[in-house]
Amino acid sequence: MLNMLATTAIVKHALEEDLGPGDLTSSALFTPAERGQGEILARQEGVIAGLPVAGLAFQMLPPGAKFIPLVTEGNRIIAGQRVARVEGPLLAILGAERVALNFLQRLSGIATLTARYVELVKPYQAKICDTRKTVPGLRLLDKYAVRLGGGVNHRLNLGDAVLLKDNHIKAAGSITAAVTRARRVIPLTAKIEVEVENLAQVEEALAAGADIIMVDNMEPGEMRRAVELVGGRALVEASGGITLDRVADVAATGIDYISVGALTHSVTALDLSLELY
Amino acid sequence: MLNMLATTAIVKHALEEDLGPGDLTSSALFTPAERGQGEILARQEGVIAGLPVAGLAFQMLPPGAKFIPLVTEGNRIIAGQRVARVEGPLLAILGAERVALNFLQRLSGIATLTARYVELVKPYQAKICDTRKTVPGLRLLDKYAVRLGGGVNHRLNLGDAVLLKDNHIKAAGSITAAVTRARRVIPLTAKIEVEVENLAQVEEALAAGADIIMVDNMEPGEMRRAVELVGGRALVEASGGITLDRVADVAATGIDYISVGALTHSVTALDLSLELY
Amino acid sequence: MLNMLATTAIVKHALEEDLGPGDLTSSALFTPAERGQGEILARQEGVIAGLPVAGLAFQMLPPGAKFIPLVTEGNRIIAGQRVARVEGPLLAILGAERVALNFLQRLSGIATLTARYVELVKPYQAKICDTRKTVPGLRLLDKYAVRLGGGVNHRLNLGDAVLLKDNHIKAAGSITAAVTRARRVIPLTAKIEVEVENLAQVEEALAAGADIIMVDNMEPGEMRRAVELVGGRALVEASGGITLDRVADVAATGIDYISVGALTHSVTALDLSLELY
Amino acid sequence: MLNMLATTAIVKHALEEDLGPGDLTSSALFTPAERGQGEILARQEGVIAGLPVAGLAFQMLPPGAKFIPLVTEGNRIIAGQRVARVEGPLLAILGAERVALNFLQRLSGIATLTARYVELVKPYQAKICDTRKTVPGLRLLDKYAVRLGGGVNHRLNLGDAVLLKDNHIKAAGSITAAVTRARRVIPLTAKIEVEVENLAQVEEALAAGADIIMVDNMEPGEMRRAVELVGGRALVEASGGITLDRVADVAATGIDYISVGALTHSVTALDLSLELY
Amino acid sequence: MLNMLATTAIVKHALEEDLGPGDLTSSALFTPAERGQGEILARQEGVIAGLPVAGLAFQMLPPGAKFIPLVTEGNRIIAGQRVARVEGPLLAILGAERVALNFLQRLSGIATLTARYVELVKPYQAKICDTRKTVPGLRLLDKYAVRLGGGVNHRLNLGDAVLLKDNHIKAAGSITAAVTRARRVIPLTAKIEVEVENLAQVEEALAAGADIIMVDNMEPGEMRRAVELVGGRALVEASGGITLDRVADVAATGIDYISVGALTHSVTALDLSLELY
Amino acid sequence: MLNMLATTAIVKHALEEDLGPGDLTSSALFTPAERGQGEILARQEGVIAGLPVAGLAFQMLPPGAKFIPLVTEGNRIIAGQRVARVEGPLLAILGAERVALNFLQRLSGIATLTARYVELVKPYQAKICDTRKTVPGLRLLDKYAVRLGGGVNHRLNLGDAVLLKDNHIKAAGSITAAVTRARRVIPLTAKIEVEVENLAQVEEALAAGADIIMVDNMEPGEMRRAVELVGGRALVEASGGITLDRVADVAATGIDYISVGALTHSVTALDLSLELY
Repeated sequence: MLNMLATTAIVKHALEEDLGPGDLTSSALFTPAERGQGEILARQEGVIAGLPVAGLAFQMLPPGAKFIPLVTEGNRIIAGQRVARVEGPLLAILGAERVALNFLQRLSGIATLTARYVELVKPYQAKICDTRKTVPGLRLLDKYAVRLGGGVNHRLNLGDAVLLKDNHIKAAGSITAAVTRARRVIPLTAKIEVEVENLAQVEEALAAGADIIMVDNMEPGEMRRAVELVGGRALVEASGGITLDRVADVAATGIDYISVGALTHSVTALDLSLELY
Repeated sequence: MLNMLATTAIVKHALEEDLGPGDLTSSALFTPAERGQGEILARQEGVIAGLPVAGLAFQMLPPGAKFIPLVTEGNRIIAGQRVARVEGPLLAILGAERVALNFLQRLSGIATLTARYVELVKPYQAKICDTRKTVPGLRLLDKYAVRLGGGVNHRLNLGDAVLLKDNHIKAAGSITAAVTRARRVIPLTAKIEVEVENLAQVEEALAAGADIIMVDNMEPGEMRRAVELVGGRALVEASGGITLDRVADVAATGIDYISVGALTHSVTALDLSLELY
Repeated sequence: MLNMLATTAIVKHALEEDLGPGDLTSSALFTPAERGQGEILARQEGVIAGLPVAGLAFQMLPPGAKFIPLVTEGNRIIAGQRVARVEGPLLAILGAERVALNFLQRLSGIATLTARYVELVKPYQAKICDTRKTVPGLRLLDKYAVRLGGGVNHRLNLGDAVLLKDNHIKAAGSITAAVTRARRVIPLTAKIEVEVENLAQVEEALAAGADIIMVDNMEPGEMRRAVELVGGRALVEASGGITLDRVADVAATGIDYISVGALTHSVTALDLSLELY
Repeated sequence: MLNMLATTAIVKHALEEDLGPGDLTSSALFTPAERGQGEILARQEGVIAGLPVAGLAFQMLPPGAKFIPLVTEGNRIIAGQRVARVEGPLLAILGAERVALNFLQRLSGIATLTARYVELVKPYQAKICDTRKTVPGLRLLDKYAVRLGGGVNHRLNLGDAVLLKDNHIKAAGSITAAVTRARRVIPLTAKIEVEVENLAQVEEALAAGADIIMVDNMEPGEMRRAVELVGGRALVEASGGITLDRVADVAATGIDYISVGALTHSVTALDLSLELY
Repeated sequence: MLNMLATTAIVKHALEEDLGPGDLTSSALFTPAERGQGEILARQEGVIAGLPVAGLAFQMLPPGAKFIPLVTEGNRIIAGQRVARVEGPLLAILGAERVALNFLQRLSGIATLTARYVELVKPYQAKICDTRKTVPGLRLLDKYAVRLGGGVNHRLNLGDAVLLKDNHIKAAGSITAAVTRARRVIPLTAKIEVEVENLAQVEEALAAGADIIMVDNMEPGEMRRAVELVGGRALVEASGGITLDRVADVAATGIDYISVGALTHSVTALDLSLELY
Repeated sequence: MLNMLATTAIVKHALEEDLGPGDLTSSALFTPAERGQGEILARQEGVIAGLPVAGLAFQMLPPGAKFIPLVTEGNRIIAGQRVARVEGPLLAILGAERVALNFLQRLSGIATLTARYVELVKPYQAKICDTRKTVPGLRLLDKYAVRLGGGVNHRLNLGDAVLLKDNHIKAAGSITAAVTRARRVIPLTAKIEVEVENLAQVEEALAAGADIIMVDNMEPGEMRRAVELVGGRALVEASGGITLDRVADVAATGIDYISVGALTHSVTALDLSLELY
C-alpha cells in the first residue's frame, strides 16, 4: 500500500538531515555494543499511521535497531497504549528516535483528522479526499496517511490527471475550449476534471465531456442542484473551505467527493513518545 | 539569513515531486510563449515567511517566471493584502503555483504562531525557541520561519550540541558521568545541555559543568527555584507541554528560554492564494 | 509540452556518462577560446524530435555552445535537410556532439515510426498509443516523441492508472473482484483498464465499471464484436502483436486505441550527423 | 564482467521511473504476504543478455522477489524456452515485471544482433565492435550486451582514449599536429586513434604514431590497400555504414575491427514475456 | 564514534570514482566465484585509523569481501604489523584494494601526526585541535582521524558555532558590535569564538561575552598574559603557524587549545599495503 | 583541460559540506547587500593550480561573488604575490573562503611537488606520472594538478586500461596467461600494462604483447638492463619508493615514465590566504 522504495529514500534523507555531521550525544556516551529497549507510547487517542516508516528509521541508522509494531497500522489507538517496541544498539535507538517520531506523529495526525471527517460523512455516500496541499517532499506519505484515515486520494501529481481551474479556463477562453484542447493531447488513461462556479458551468463542463466536476465554494442548495443536474454522468466533488462543522451539510447534498486541504496543510501531530525501560 | 544553496535543492525536489512526469493541464493548454500575471493574496492576518522560497519555485520551473515581493519578509500582513506579484509564462506560473504556496503557507503559519508566543512573553526576558520536531526534509526552512517570527533556534541537528535527556542519563549512569564523558570527546565549540526533573539534578548538572539546563515539565514554582539556584551560571530552558495559555506563567519564572514543539510539529497553514488577473 | 526540469537532469546525466573523466581528445586540442560552428544534417527522411533536448546538451556542457533549430520540432524533414546550427567553443560542440545526436536520433526514430502507424489509421477513428516498453531512464522522452509523431500516450507510470492484466485478474479471482477492490482504494482521478480475451470478459469488465477495455491479441472479427458490445460505454484499446501490416485492419474494427510496443522498444535511429564548416 | 555497483544504481533509477508514486494496480489488489511464481519465456530465438540486471529489478523492489536464471547469460536460446523463474511476493513480481523485461529484451536484442555480425565475419580475423551510439544512461549495459554477443568494445567514454575525427583534424590543422599535441598531454595508458579517408592520410597517421587507424567509409579495395600499407604497425578499424549485407566483404579485406553503430542505436527488442502459473 | 550513514555514502562515491566504467583488469581475469585472501600490512609505525571505512569498501563492492581487523582502531601499530585480513571473491578484494588503502593511509597519516602533537603537549593542560582545512568531501573522516590521534575537534561546519575572524570584525565595525549582533540571532546552543590579536582585544572579547578567545599568531609571552587576563572566564585557543617545534612552548603558556591546520591540510599517508597470500 | 561539469558537482558538494545548515557567522552579521573585496595572497613560492575551482566556489555560493585570477593557472608564483581578487557580497566571499582555499592550497601543493620532480628529470627523457593514490572524491582534480605541474597522468580509473600487478598474475597463473586472457575481452582502445620484478618477466611480458612494462622496485642497474631489453617495443615505467633523492638516478636509466604516489597521497598544502581590504 506504501511505495517502500520511495519511502526508503525519504527516510534516509530525514536521517541525514537530523544527524548533520553525527549524533554528538549518543556517540559520546555509547559504543555500538551497548543495547537497550524501549516503547513508543501514545499520549493521545487517534489513528496510528506511519509504523513502517518509523521502522525504517530505526533499521536504517547504523548499526540498526529492531522495530516491532504492537498495533495494526491504520487502527485506532487510545491514550496510554503501547504502539511499538524498539530494541537494539542505543546508538540506533536514540539516534533515530526523533526522526521516527516526527514521521509517526505527523502521519498519525493526518490519519486521525481524516478519520474525523470520514466519520461525519458516514451516513452519506460522499467520500473525503485530499488535495496537493501537502508538505513538500512528503506528498507520498501524507497521502498514504489520508488513505489510512479512511479517505481517498486526489491527484498524486500534476501528471496524473487534468484539473482545469478558473485560471486555466480564463486563459484558455472557455471550459469547452479547454476540455477539447486537453482531451486531444493527454494520455488515454487520464481523466479531466473541471472546476465550476455555477450551474451554467456545470452544464458546459458536462457537455464538453468532463469526467469529474468540482463545485467550488458553492452553497449546499446550489450544490444539490448541481448534483441533480449531473445525474451520474460525471463524478462531483465539493471543494473550498470545508470544515468539520460544515462537512455533513455538504455530504447531505448527495455529492460524491469532498476535498479537504486542511487534512495535510494544517496537521496537528499526534502526541507520541519513546520511553526506554 | 537563509542558506540559499540548500534551499535551492529543497525547492527543486519539491517541484519534481509535484510535477511527476509533467504538468498535464498547463502543457495541454499553453505554449511557453503565453504569458500572464497574478498576485498572491493574504486571506488571513499573520507574519509572512518564505518569500524567497516561493520566488525560487517560480523562477526554477522552466521557462521560469518573475516573482516580486510586495511586502517585507518577516513582516505582519493583514487579510486582503497583496503579498507578491508573479509574471511570466503561464506554464511557470500555473505549474509552480501549488509548490510556491505550499512553502509560503507553511512557513508563514510557523512564523505567525511563533510571533504569538513571542508576544506573550515580551514582558519577560524569556525567549521562545524551537525543537527538532520539524517536518522531515524541511528542518532548515521550519527553523528559519521560527526566527522570522521572533523566535530563537535550538539545535539544528544532532551534531550541533550535546543534549543529555533522561534516556541518555539513565543509560550513562548519572548526570555527572554523562557530562564528563561527553566533555572529553566533543568539539570545543559544542555546548552541553542537560535535561533535569528536579532541583537536585539542577545542582548536579551545574556542578558537572552543563552550559544549559533544561527543566522538563516543571511547575512554575519549582522552575523559579531552579532559575534562582542556577543564578546565571548556566542558561535555563523550560520544555514540555508549553501552550499559549501557559507560556506567560512560565516566562514569569525568570527562565531564559522556552521551547515549544508545536511551533513546527502542529502548523496551521496561513491562508494565501494566487489570483491571475 | 516537455517537462524541461526533468529533461535537464536526464541530459546532465547523459553528458556525465559520455564524458567519463573528461573529453581527452578535445581538451588536448582546444582551449575554451577556440570556436567553431556546424550544422546537424539529415541523411534520411523522417519526423524530427528532440531538438530542445539536443539543445540542452550543447548548452550544458561547459563552456556551452549555442543551438539554433532550423526546422520545427515534430515536423517532417527530408534527406539532406539542415536541421540545426551549433556555434560556440569547440570544446562544447565536439564534446556534446555524440550525446546530442544520440538523443536526437532516437527520438526522431520514434516519432518517425509513430507517424507511419498514424498515417495508416487516418481513415479510421483509431488513435495510435504507446506502452511502458520504453528504454529505462528515458520514459519521459520516448513518450514525448510518440506525441510528436501523432500518437497518444498510455500510462506514464504505474501510479497513473490501474491496468488489470491477466496475471492480476488470475491472482485476484475475477475481473469483478479486481475492479471492485481497486475502485475502493485508488484516487478518484484514476481510471481502471481491464485486459480481456473474449466477449464474456468484455461484458464482465463493462458491468464491473471498467473505464477502458483492452482487447488482447483478438482477431479483427472478434474485436469488431467487442467494439459493438461496448457501444461507447468504455474506451476500447487493441493490443498485442500490432505491426505496420496489420494496423489498418485493426483500426477498421472501429476500435478507439491501438497500442504498439515497438514504437519504443525497437527503435531505428534516424540518420543524422554533425558537420563542422 | 558487469559493474554491479553501477548497475544497481541504474536499476534503482528505472524502478523509480516506472513506479512513479507507486504501483496502483498491484497495491490495490495484493498485500505483501500474497505470493506467486512465474517464468520468463522466450517467444523468439536469440542470445540472452541481462539476466543479472533483471534479477536486480525483482530483488530490489520491496518486498523483493527471487530470480532464478534457467539459462546461461550470453547463451543462445530458442523460441519457447524458459529463461528464468521468479518467485515471491506478487507485489514485487508484478511491480518489477516491466522494468525487468525492458532491460532483458533490449540487452538480448543487442546481443542477438551482435552475434549475427560476429557469425558473418567468423572466417576472417576481423572483430565486431561497438560505438558510443548507445542509449543515454545505458552505455554500460549496452556495451556489456555487445560483449555477450561476441563483440568487442570500443571506447566506453571520452576519457578512455583519443579519437581524432575529421572535425578535430580540420580544427587542429593536420593529423600530424593533432596527434603530436595529443600525445604530449594524455595519460600514458591512452591510445590514439585517427580517422582517415584515404591512403595518404593512413601514411600520415602512421608516421605520427597513431595506435589505431579508422578507415571511414572506404571501398573494400581501398580498405585492403590501407591494411597492407599499415602492415601491422597499428590496428585498423573499418567504420561507417556497415550492414549485415556488407560486413563479410569488409572483413575480407584483412581489417582488424569493424565498428557497427546499429548494434546499439537501432535495437530490436527480443520478444520475451513473464507468465504467472 | 563515526557517522556510518554518511560514511557509507562517501565510500560508495569513492568506489564509483575509482571503478569508472568498471575494473577492466579483474573482470577480465576472474569470475565472481574465484576467491582469495590477503592481509593489510604496515610498512611504517603509526596510529591506525579508518578500519571501518576500509571495511566498507571491501564489503560494498559487489560481490563483497569480508574484512577482519587484526588491530584496534586508534591504536599504535609497528612496521611489519598485520593490520587486517581480507577474504572473499578476488573481484571484490582487488577491485576495492586501492580505495580501501587510500582511505586507510590518509586517515592513519592524520591520526599519526595528531598523536605526535598530542604527545608533545602531554605535560600541559592544552589540547590539540583541528581546523576546517580538511580535504573537500572528507571533513567527517579527517576529523574522526584527529580524534583517534588524541585530538579534539573544532567546528565541523559553518553552522556549528560562530567564529569571528578579523575580516568579520572589520566588516562589522568592532568585536563588541559583532558579538552582540551574533548573540541575538544564533541558536542558544551555539558558542561564539572571537579571534584577537592583542590584549586589548582580549578584554573587549571577554566583555562582549565571547565563549572562546582565539589568540592568533601571538608570541608565547603575550599569549601567557592573554591566558592570565582571561582567567578562566572563557576558553583560550592558540592558532597560526603551530609546528612540532613550537607546540610545546605554546602549550606551556597555559592555553586551553592549540589548533593545527597541518593535521589535515598537509597529510603524509601512512605506508600500508595489501598482500595476497 | 579540466572537466568543468564534474568540477561543478565537486565544488557544490564541498560547499554543502562546509556550510552544514548554514554560515552562522556571516549570516548573523551581513545582509546580501553588504559587499567587500579581497585578495588571495601567496605566502610561499610554488606552482598555482586550481584557480577555476576556487572561482567556482565563490560564484556558486549564493548570492555569488566575482573571482578574478591575477596569475596564470599552472604558472610559478612567489611568496607575497597576489594570486586573485574576489569582489561581491560578503556573504559569498566569507562563506566560500575556506572551501576555495582548501581546493587551491591542495592543488597548488600537488602541482608544486610535481614540478620539483619534473625539474629533476629534465636532463633525461623520463616523464613523471601519478598513480591512483589520490584522495577519494578528488581524483579528477588531483590528476589535473599533476598535469599543471608538468607531470603526465596514469590511469584515471580502473576502466581506462589493464594493469596486471603481482596479485593478478599470481591468481591468473602467469603473465602470459593473464595478458592473453585480458586482450581477448578488453576494448580495442585499452592498453595492457604488466608489473614485473625481474628481467625474465620483462621478456615474458614483451612476448605476451604488453604495451607498457612497469618495473617495480628495481635497482637502477637492473632497470637499465630492462630498458635495453625492451628496446622501444613497449613503454617502460619505474614504480615504487621513488623520492626526490632517487628520482634522477632512476631517470638516468633511460626509463620512459616514473610514477610517484607521493604526488597525491602526501600533499603539503601551499600556503595561501585571503585578505579583505
